[in-house]
Amino acid sequence: LRAVSLNEHSLQALSWRKLYLSRAKLKATSRTSALLSGFAMVAMVEVQLERDYVYPPGLLIAFSACTTVLVAVHLFALMISTCILPNLEAVSNVHNLNSVKESPHERMHRHIELAWAFSTVIGTFLFLAEVLLLCWVKFLPLKKPGATSAPPKEEKGISAGEAAAYASTFIMVPCGLVFIVFAVHFYRSLVSHKTDRQFQELEELSNITRLQNQLDHRAEAALHQSTMFPLYCSCLYYIFPFLI
Amino acid sequence: LRAVSLNEHSLQALSWRKLYLSRAKLKATSRTSALLSGFAMVAMVEVQLERDYVYPPGLLIAFSACTTVLVAVHLFALMISTCILPNLEAVSNVHNLNSVKESPHERMHRHIELAWAFSTVIGTFLFLAEVLLLCWVKFLPLKKPGATSAPPKEEKGISAGEAAAYASTFIMVPCGLVFIVFAVHFYRSLVSHKTDRQFQELEELSNITRLQNQLDHRAEAALHQSTMFPLYCSCLYYIFPFLI
Amino acid sequence: LRAVSLNEHSLQALSWRKLYLSRAKLKATSRTSALLSGFAMVAMVEVQLERDYVYPPGLLIAFSACTTVLVAVHLFALMISTCILPNLEAVSNVHNLNSVKESPHERMHRHIELAWAFSTVIGTFLFLAEVLLLCWVKFLPLKKPGATSAPPKEEKGISAGEAAAYASTFIMVPCGLVFIVFAVHFYRSLVSHKTDRQFQELEELSNITRLQNQLDHRAEAALHQSTMFPLYCSCLYYIFPFLI
Amino acid sequence: LRAVSLNEHSLQALSWRKLYLSRAKLKATSRTSALLSGFAMVAMVEVQLERDYVYPPGLLIAFSACTTVLVAVHLFALMISTCILPNLEAVSNVHNLNSVKESPHERMHRHIELAWAFSTVIGTFLFLAEVLLLCWVKFLPLKKPGATSAPPKEEKGISAGEAAAYASTFIMVPCGLVFIVFAVHFYRSLVSHKTDRQFQELEELSNITRLQNQLDHRAEAALHQSTMFPLYCSCLYYIFPFLI
Amino acid sequence: LRAVSLNEHSLQALSWRKLYLSRAKLKATSRTSALLSGFAMVAMVEVQLERDYVYPPGLLIAFSACTTVLVAVHLFALMISTCILPNLEAVSNVHNLNSVKESPHERMHRHIELAWAFSTVIGTFLFLAEVLLLCWVKFLPLKKPGATSAPPKEEKGISAGEAAAYASTFIMVPCGLVFIVFAVHFYRSLVSHKTDRQFQELEELSNITRLQNQLDHRAEAALHQSTMFPLYCSCLYYIFPFLI
Amino acid sequence: LRAVSLNEHSLQALSWRKLYLSRAKLKATSRTSALLSGFAMVAMVEVQLERDYVYPPGLLIAFSACTTVLVAVHLFALMISTCILPNLEAVSNVHNLNSVKESPHERMHRHIELAWAFSTVIGTFLFLAEVLLLCWVKFLPLKKPGATSAPPKEEKGISAGEAAAYASTFIMVPCGLVFIVFAVHFYRSLVSHKTDRQFQELEELSNITRLQNQLDHRAEAALHQSTMFPLYCSCLYYIFPFLI
Repeated sequence: LRAVSLNEHSLQALSWRKLYLSRAKLKATSRTSALLSGFAMVAMVEVQLERDYVYPPGLLIAFSACTTVLVAVHLFALMISTCILPNLEAVSNVHNLNSVKESPHERMHRHIELAWAFSTVIGTFLFLAEVLLLCWVKFLPLKKPGATSAPPKEEKGISAGEAAAYASTFIMVPCGLVFIVFAVHFYRSLVSHKTDRQFQELEELSNITRLQNQLDHRAEAALHQSTMFPLYCSCLYYIFPFLI
Repeated sequence: LRAVSLNEHSLQALSWRKLYLSRAKLKATSRTSALLSGFAMVAMVEVQLERDYVYPPGLLIAFSACTTVLVAVHLFALMISTCILPNLEAVSNVHNLNSVKESPHERMHRHIELAWAFSTVIGTFLFLAEVLLLCWVKFLPLKKPGATSAPPKEEKGISAGEAAAYASTFIMVPCGLVFIVFAVHFYRSLVSHKTDRQFQELEELSNITRLQNQLDHRAEAALHQSTMFPLYCSCLYYIFPFLI
Repeated sequence: LRAVSLNEHSLQALSWRKLYLSRAKLKATSRTSALLSGFAMVAMVEVQLERDYVYPPGLLIAFSACTTVLVAVHLFALMISTCILPNLEAVSNVHNLNSVKESPHERMHRHIELAWAFSTVIGTFLFLAEVLLLCWVKFLPLKKPGATSAPPKEEKGISAGEAAAYASTFIMVPCGLVFIVFAVHFYRSLVSHKTDRQFQELEELSNITRLQNQLDHRAEAALHQSTMFPLYCSCLYYIFPFLI
Repeated sequence: LRAVSLNEHSLQALSWRKLYLSRAKLKATSRTSALLSGFAMVAMVEVQLERDYVYPPGLLIAFSACTTVLVAVHLFALMISTCILPNLEAVSNVHNLNSVKESPHERMHRHIELAWAFSTVIGTFLFLAEVLLLCWVKFLPLKKPGATSAPPKEEKGISAGEAAAYASTFIMVPCGLVFIVFAVHFYRSLVSHKTDRQFQELEELSNITRLQNQLDHRAEAALHQSTMFPLYCSCLYYIFPFLI
Repeated sequence: LRAVSLNEHSLQALSWRKLYLSRAKLKATSRTSALLSGFAMVAMVEVQLERDYVYPPGLLIAFSACTTVLVAVHLFALMISTCILPNLEAVSNVHNLNSVKESPHERMHRHIELAWAFSTVIGTFLFLAEVLLLCWVKFLPLKKPGATSAPPKEEKGISAGEAAAYASTFIMVPCGLVFIVFAVHFYRSLVSHKTDRQFQELEELSNITRLQNQLDHRAEAALHQSTMFPLYCSCLYYIFPFLI
Repeated sequence: LRAVSLNEHSLQALSWRKLYLSRAKLKATSRTSALLSGFAMVAMVEVQLERDYVYPPGLLIAFSACTTVLVAVHLFALMISTCILPNLEAVSNVHNLNSVKESPHERMHRHIELAWAFSTVIGTFLFLAEVLLLCWVKFLPLKKPGATSAPPKEEKGISAGEAAAYASTFIMVPCGLVFIVFAVHFYRSLVSHKTDRQFQELEELSNITRLQNQLDHRAEAALHQSTMFPLYCSCLYYIFPFLI
């Protein structure tokens, strides 16, 4: 009977750990998304587009689309985070072992992962693209050395501004590739870590159960001497691990 | 008699959980509203309207109305949050089991839900619309390639700026639809989770009551041996769960 | 004799609750006022007044007066909050039951309410007005479609900018009215909640006193068996409720 | 002998309360000063002075002097706060009753009060003046209705900008007076509260001493029965009040 | 048998210390990277490039490349930090001694060090370079005293702006060198501190083991008198060190 | 033997206090440096230099040099703080008395003092100079009353802008002197406080040792009655002071 209750306790501990993980992820999501969407918004509002310069349409479309998607992705993540986080925090403040079942973090598991992926992986990648497009928008209208006021399109060679924008592109493209490779590698590493841990956990659980059985036998022997103390001990064991 | 006091205790625990949930919601509301209303305000102040370009009246009206509603909605949420939150925090600092009845979170339940909906759902949706309108205001005055200084209205084709604004619209409209669908689905999911939980809670309550009765019988038997210890245990039980 | 000390203890608990409420209100005041006065300041500094456009004098006077009053009200609230808050925090850190008498929160009760009203009710209302006036200042100088460079006053019809400013006004005026109605309703609701609670508290107090008397009688009976333990229990009761 | 140790303990408690008060004041000082000096700095950097408008020299001198004094006062307060605060925090983290003597808050008492007054009273008052001068700098260069491009000085009547600046002045001057009156009244109220408390404290101290003597007599009587428990109790008394 | 369990406990304590160190590093990384990438972004968006001035291409390329690399490095650090930190926080909230094995901080050790180095060493160094390039971009277009509107390149002497930019360079280059020397010296100092500590730890471990053996012998002797108390003590020893 | 262990304990307590002091200093350093370097950066980026005004070269060189040194000093302090702080936080989270030896705060003592001095004393002083130079850069290009568009250098009298800049200088120079005098006085006051304390500590240490000897004698006498309790007491004494 006690081994059963121990297994149940172990499952609860696992559930609490998942709850804390979800809470930490949503907090990180909320902070990162607020920061990056704010920067994207400021970049959009404060960049000065030159009215008398003819920007290439592709650049403007890319800039506009990138900013829109970036803000939408981060606002989405922020909205999910703001909706679920209060429910998790209310549960984790109560410090009642059973209250973990009240929490919607298991049922909403996919929403939380979605918000986290939106905020960290897709959001950061789009932000790198946004910085690159911003460099193009800022540097393209600058005059070439020795140019007259004629439209700069028909002349040969590239202006200093274009050179700067190309330099920015040549740096950012490999960065973006490394970023994607890294994110994939990273995700695999975390998943394999989690899988490894679950095998170990199952082994530990069976070990604990075996140990528990032995202790029960010994405890029964000791019970003839003192009946109060083990109860008190186990009681402490249930209370303290979640004291804080 | 003890089963009654246990039920009462269980109701108090439920009330505390509601208190923590309301507090967490108001905190999230306050943070999100301050952030988004600040961004809307900065966007309004810092965007440079070109005085010699003739904006379409509909765009200006939409931009002006959207900014006004956005700031009003977030300030409303901020005001409700600032008014109710101190009352909840004062109660949750006292850590007296009975003090939960002092808290106005049950009576003000609808105001809290209103502030939360204003801040997260309506406020975020309006913010997406604001970003879209901002794109139009920024990109519309840009010159077309090959255009002269004549008013650009009578010519055919669309300028690069208009193309960028259309691209932004084509991205944002489905985003907004997904957003609404998601919010509705999300709300239902939370509500159904809450309903499920309440059925389970009722069952648990009856289980606990039955268990309690059994324990009482056993405790009465044990009472003949040691009268002090159970009192001490139950006392611990009342004190520790809310220690922090 | 013990019933007296219990009543005294109950009064202290009430006083602590008031202290926590005052502290939470001042913290909310300080945060909200810093935020909103900062936005008002930024709006004042960064808005670009067109030097060659003739603004209507009433608009400029209203804008200037509103900004000044807004900043003054919030700075006032911030000053009161910064002056009283350290005294409350010093007391609430000591965690000595008697130290609540050191705190100036009862004597300064009206200042705290004043700061809170300034920051939340008046300050938020003025901020709504500020946003409205800002819309007028931004949108008024925009050209009408088909207008020449002649002074736009003598012509008929309204420009797109004026239309946008009117739209903003038509939205904001009912918002402001709802805001005032809501604030009044809200204040009444909080006050009536407080009055209800005080009646209940008086009843509870008399109940507790009666219960206490009964317990005393029973405790006297138990005292013949064990003299040490009740003292220890009551000691715990005095220490733990304010442990955190 | 024990009465002496109790008095000493009471003095230590007083010293801890002063330490917490100093710490809270320095924290509030640091936060307020960073905020307001930042706003003043931003206002100075971002305000656009019109190069072709002839500002009255008095206005420019007042604006420049006010900004300089404002930033200097707040940086001074920030510097004092940053220098003393770590010493207080290091002491208040140790939670050893005797370590309060290590803290420099008694010796540096005047510096702390100076920083606090600089930050809250003088700093806030100067900030109000700064806002007023900013209104003048922003609104003065605006054109009068019906004015030609001639220098606006020789004409009669005042422009809309001047009217707005005067309106701001007529509001701010009484605010400033109320501010000064309030600060003086406030300071007196706090001081008289403190003086009242010190009389009460002296009385309480003598009461406690008398009570202590009585308890000692009773404790001596009880000592014949159980020698261990009072020691344990007094030990708890020394440890718990500063547990957190 | 107990010596073995003590060694195991000691290894766990070491593992917890590593976990706390990783967590603190990731937190510092996240804060610093968000701050510096925000500044770089703002500098890029808000700096006003003069369209009619011919900047040297090298300067523009360097400025563009430096900003891009700076933002990419900090976003990379921010992404790693946001991905790993929730896993560490979830583990460190559980306060179960064995849960430290769940944490991915040992396996992800190199990622954490990489994020930290990116954020503090490389990121700060690039930020110094960014400030230097910003000085050049701001000061170069300024006119020379006595210059006509002819292109300033062919004339002799340097303008005031160039002099300012050179001054900035002459200050920043030695600063950068000192910075690199300092970072290398700093890294060595930390590493040598860690190596020293590990030798001491090994010695302490063997000392503790020896001491433990002696205590076991003594404890066995004492066991004949009281069997319950040592168990209770060791139990306390396991529970309290990680209570908070 | 116990007196020796007490001395050792006292040394450990001293070491913990130093650790907390270093940690608090580094935190204050990090916060102040991030704030002030951010303001300097914004001032540099956003100040608008007039391209057609001939600034005196000395002013531009001073402004450029001051900004560069200011940012470099604060980034240096920020880098040191970010590198050392995680090591201190990891140690102070473990709450093991012996773990204080792991901390690098004694070996890195000079780096910490350097970062603190850079951030508070030198950094704040340079910030005052920066504000003064900013006033000059802002106010110098303004026109004199009655001036024509001729270069303003050859004329007599000073313009309103120059008057404002001189006013700012006349205020800031005495402020800077007071600042330096204050910093020197302040440093001496802190050092003399520390020296005084160390004499008192040595005395206290010898007092405690003497007291300890007396207690040992008495404890030996008491040991014949109860052998368990003193051990328990001393155990509590070792555990509780650092519980939080």
